[in-house]
Amino acid sequence: MPSKTGTGDPPGSAGNFALRIPDGEDRPRLVCDTCGFINYVNPRVVVGTVCTWRERILMCRRAIEPRTGFWTIPAGYLEEKETVMDGAKREAREEACADVDLDSVLSIYTVPRISQVQIIYRGTLRSPDVAPGPESQEVALLTWDEIPWDDIAFPSVHWALNHFREVRELRSFPPFANPEGETGDRRPGETRHPGQ
Amino acid sequence: MPSKTGTGDPPGSAGNFALRIPDGEDRPRLVCDTCGFINYVNPRVVVGTVCTWRERILMCRRAIEPRTGFWTIPAGYLEEKETVMDGAKREAREEACADVDLDSVLSIYTVPRISQVQIIYRGTLRSPDVAPGPESQEVALLTWDEIPWDDIAFPSVHWALNHFREVRELRSFPPFANPEGETGDRRPGETRHPGQ
Repeated sequence: MPSKTGTGDPPGSAGNFALRIPDGEDRPRLVCDTCGFINYVNPRVVVGTVCTWRERILMCRRAIEPRTGFWTIPAGYLEEKETVMDGAKREAREEACADVDLDSVLSIYTVPRISQVQIIYRGTLRSPDVAPGPESQEVALLTWDEIPWDDIAFPSVHWALNHFREVRELRSFPPFANPEGETGDRRPGETRHPGQ
Repeated sequence: MPSKTGTGDPPGSAGNFALRIPDGEDRPRLVCDTCGFINYVNPRVVVGTVCTWRERILMCRRAIEPRTGFWTIPAGYLEEKETVMDGAKREAREEACADVDLDSVLSIYTVPRISQVQIIYRGTLRSPDVAPGPESQEVALLTWDEIPWDDIAFPSVHWALNHFREVRELRSFPPFANPEGETGDRRPGETRHPGQ
């Protein structure tokens, strides 16, 4: 899903915002000098799934920014009043027309720079019938060796795939966190796409 | 931490908000008719810990609304640019002056009505020196039988304590989700406090 809010300037160009500490608070918030609105910004939750059909992993080629044309697992922002598991299933449906059963929590990652918490599940497809939704150019069921490793959209997609592989044969396991020292930011060399 | 935003009306009384579907979107958002600001609201992340010192569990009696005077585990909203684990440790420090090491993810709960995702850890205190922070009336290290079960602040605190007990002796386990059929809302009979 596209980034819509909250990790810096408020969304849209409207409003007349200044950064100040509101009364009774301990940290600066964006306050609109026109209408007095306080823009409380909190980290956002991304929910996603490493989905398999037998030995194959469902991958989606992004049709939207950021990272159009790069590959990811089905994942996106949790919506209001949605459970995390419902959100993960909705994203698989929206991005790959996929019907998935979740079996365990694979990982909880944080990307602090953009205030993103990612909750990633391990799941199995109910059928191999998948197709690109509006946010995907292409979807595919790929073996490990077929995954386009040089064209992965985000570091956390690498993490999720590799963590998935580590526990593939395990029925029960504790969730992974970020790999040691990793923040989830792409390195400059990885930014090959125009406009990125 | 107090509730500050985002699960209905925008925070504060400023702004002139109407609910409408912005261009290119698929669901209604609050838009300010005065300045054009779009109030994107996303679920918020609560991070918390069931912390122990030997056989005793750290509990905090709330000094703030909602549920002032009721007991909880140290937990609160994740802040911007903070990892989930750092957030959980910060909350233990703020609410109970406690220094905690996290050892595993106990549970991931969702309370859909208020769009809250709760990530709860299991942790151990580095010392039994705990004291109430500004948001706690009192803190205590309690045995299971000493926990004031009738005065627990929220259903998810019950869940976390009981889930903790189930895995207390296990080194490694998958995280729990909401108990079957539970949404995290308090039942009317549980609402005994004036103003709640």
